[in-house]
Order: sequence, then structure tokens, then C-alpha cells
Amino acid sequence: MKYFIVAVMSICVIGIFASAGMAELRGEAVEYRDGDAVMEGYLVYDDAKQGIRPGVLVVHEWMGLNAYAKKRADQLAELGYIAFAADIYGKGIRPKDTTEAGQFAGKYRSDRKLLRSRVNAAFSVLNDQDLTDLKRTAAIGYCFGGTTVLELARSGADLSGVVSFHGALSTPTPGDAKNIKAKVLALHGADDPNVKPDEVAAFQEEMGKAGVDWYFVSYGNAVHSFTNPDAGNDPKKGAAYNEKADKRSWEAMKSFFKEIFGEK
Amino acid sequence: MKYFIVAVMSICVIGIFASAGMAELRGEAVEYRDGDAVMEGYLVYDDAKQGIRPGVLVVHEWMGLNAYAKKRADQLAELGYIAFAADIYGKGIRPKDTTEAGQFAGKYRSDRKLLRSRVNAAFSVLNDQDLTDLKRTAAIGYCFGGTTVLELARSGADLSGVVSFHGALSTPTPGDAKNIKAKVLALHGADDPNVKPDEVAAFQEEMGKAGVDWYFVSYGNAVHSFTNPDAGNDPKKGAAYNEKADKRSWEAMKSFFKEIFGEK
Repeated sequence: MKYFIVAVMSICVIGIFASAGMAELRGEAVEYRDGDAVMEGYLVYDDAKQGIRPGVLVVHEWMGLNAYAKKRADQLAELGYIAFAADIYGKGIRPKDTTEAGQFAGKYRSDRKLLRSRVNAAFSVLNDQDLTDLKRTAAIGYCFGGTTVLELARSGADLSGVVSFHGALSTPTPGDAKNIKAKVLALHGADDPNVKPDEVAAFQEEMGKAGVDWYFVSYGNAVHSFTNPDAGNDPKKGAAYNEKADKRSWEAMKSFFKEIFGEK
Repeated sequence: MKYFIVAVMSICVIGIFASAGMAELRGEAVEYRDGDAVMEGYLVYDDAKQGIRPGVLVVHEWMGLNAYAKKRADQLAELGYIAFAADIYGKGIRPKDTTEAGQFAGKYRSDRKLLRSRVNAAFSVLNDQDLTDLKRTAAIGYCFGGTTVLELARSGADLSGVVSFHGALSTPTPGDAKNIKAKVLALHGADDPNVKPDEVAAFQEEMGKAGVDWYFVSYGNAVHSFTNPDAGNDPKKGAAYNEKADKRSWEAMKSFFKEIFGEK
């Protein structure tokens, strides 16, 4: 097995009240490898729930695996899934500012082979968990992570679905869409200056030509990073939080999961 | 009051089992007027449910008020709403084939003032019902009806939201978008030959410029009429049923209603 878990580094249990009852989230830092590179992701699930369950990979924004991505993983665990927040950059490797984030993300964007290797390594960690229902897995990603989960799908990974939140949609190898087994949902800010209409059109054409089962939502008045409160509130900056689009896109993802996981 | 109900023509009660319990749908043909013109719509609600509830107007396809539109109204009543299926063409006026349907629909498409008058008349019938919660109303429409509910919104009608299913999106008066009070959800077949990318782009620009609260879903592999089983199964004809897009778009509408009606 190319990808393996090195160690469970720490465990924390967070008791939370979820609408379905008392959830008891168990979050763990998980060290794993992609070749020689050491990564550290975050695994979380509801310890009060019994048995196997759908597994969801979460891929971070350009700032790397941080509190935001972990919070999304926690939310997925509250929904009853087992979630693993990937670490694409490597253990302890975190950009100190947006300039460095652009460099880090750019490295992987311009080397899709490496990006696919990194995300498949993380996906393997999710699949290695006893609690993961291997027939019901998905991946979601934000911004850089949206691009990444689309590459995971294009790599031919065996999963039920992928969801991109304000991810860049283009790829140097659109022909690889033929490998896609997952259903694809892309959630897009209609005014995102980073993902322009031409890129949207090319993506939809790519999906259509390859016979992928896809759909696409454009949220009016939303720019880049519309799901992340840390992005601030000024759409003129090109990235900003938009509460409506955040809530709507999360509901869209939930509805998509219900469908692909066969839930009621 | 310009619009008034002439008579309740017939009443039928259909007992159905809904997931929320035993629903008892009561469907009524309702005659009403728009000026001198006499129309006959279809009102339906769950008689086993108590009290006021959100009201939803349903506007038919180019074939006029038929079993399909009534079925959608029934489904809305099962969800707990009071639904009124409008009759835009007039009582007993039904196209005998698609050629005539094109003529009928074309008449209203080219006379938006008349179309707005017709749809507002129907909306008034919904608002006149004791069971309708006047603070929580919406309109949905299919194909020609999608176009029509967008015109209802552009006319400045006071409703919480409109949903267009595979409707044509263009209007001769895009500036009227400034009148829109409703939230707008448009559900579109990505391969719809009747509603091309330029029209989609113009619509999104119209909504954005006017500051409308809107979002838009494109369903991959779906053409015109994707929600209607009567459209057949050959996408090459430009109109065809698509079960996935049908189910996904209905779920999207339900999620939208939950938001705009403040439901859990």
C-alpha cells in the first residue's frame, strides 16, 4: 500500500448537541505519507453513532489545513459522516500569508500529477478507516480544494461524488474527464473574479463531452470564498463571505449527499 | 377588486398517504376573470391540515393548464402548501397540438403586458383564499410558465419567491428587474436548445445589475422540458424527460421554499 497511516497523533473528544440527538465528536490528528512526504490530516466522526457510515474527504483552501477546513469536517461528522480533512502541503508546512499561499497553491496547480498523488493519499486514509463505508464516499473542497477534488475525480478515483465550493474549474487535461466515476456538483459565485464565465463554460463543456453526471449552481451576488467568514464582507475585494450563498451551498451539498449516499 | 372568483365549479377530494401523515387533498376547479376574459384554474390543498399556510402559484407549459400542471399543484399540496394552478389561456382554450401551442404561447410572449395581467389575475385568486398566508407566497412555472413567473416577479408582484423550471429567461424589458421583490431561482437544462448560453448570461446579468437575490442551477445532460415525463426520452429532439434533473430540481425548489417560507 503506497499510502499508510504513520500514527494517530492526538485525540480529542468534543461533546456537541446535534439535532439528531447527542453527538460526540471524536477528532484526531492523523499522520500519513505520500511517498516520502509526511502529511498531517484531521479525522473526525461521531463516536456516539454505531457502525459504518459514508466517508467525506475535505480539502482545504490555499492557506492549507486550518481551523476552517477542520470546522467543515466537524460539521460533516455532525451530519453522521466520517470526515477526513486532507493536508496537501505537508505536516507543519503552512503559508504565513497570502503571498506564500499563492506560491504553495501554485506549485500544486501547475503540477497536477503531484496534486493528484497528494489528494489520493488523503483519500486512502479515509478509505482505511474501519468506520468508512467504502461504497459511499465523497470529497468536498474549497477554493484550491475545489480544484483539488475535481482533479481527484479526473484521476479516476472510485468515489460517489465530489463537490467544489468556489473552486477554480480549469484543468490542463480536460480529456481526463473521461475517467470520472463520481457525480460532480460545482458551487460557484456568479461574480467570482477568479473563475470567469469562460472558465465556467469550458468546465461545463468538459463535463458534458465526457458524459459526466454533473450539475452546477451559480449564486448571484457572490464572489470568491463566499463560504468563509474569514474572507470578510467586501465583495469589491473579489473574495468575501456571503451568508446566503454559504447556507444555500451547504444545503445543496446535503441534498447531493442524500442522493448519492441513498439517504432519506 | 379587478380579479374575482366567479364560482367554485367542482370539488373533488383525494385521500392520499403522505409521509407527514394522512393528507386529504381537496382539489377544486376555480373560475375567475382577468378583465372580460374568463379563466378556469385549479386550487388544491390538504384538507386534513389546519390553518393558514404558504401559497404557491403554478403556471403551466405551452400546452396550457393540463394534468401535468395539476399534478405539480397536488404535489405542492402534499408538501403542506395551498396551490393554485393558473390558466393563462382562458377557460376551455387549449391548444390541440404543438403548432397551436406555439401560437398561443407566442401571443403572450410577444405581449408581456397581457401576460403579466393574466398571471397577476391568477396570483390574486391564490391571495384571496382564506388558507393562504399572504406573507408567504411563491410562484413556480414550467417552460412557458417559467417565463411567466419571471414576468410576474418583474411586474413587482409582492411574493417571497419565484422558481422557473426550464423557462425561457429573456424579456423585452430587462430594466423591470428593478421591480423584483421576490427571490429568484432558475432551474435550467444545460443542453436546452431553446435557452442558449447567451440567454442565460443575459439573464444573470439582468438579475445581478438589478440587485435581485437570485441563484441558478444548470443540470448537465438535460434539455428542454426535463421535468415532464410526457416529453419522451430522446434528448436529440431538444426536449426530453430527465429523471435525475427532475428529482434534483424538485429538491432544489423544496430547499428554496424552506428558506423563503422560514421552514425547518
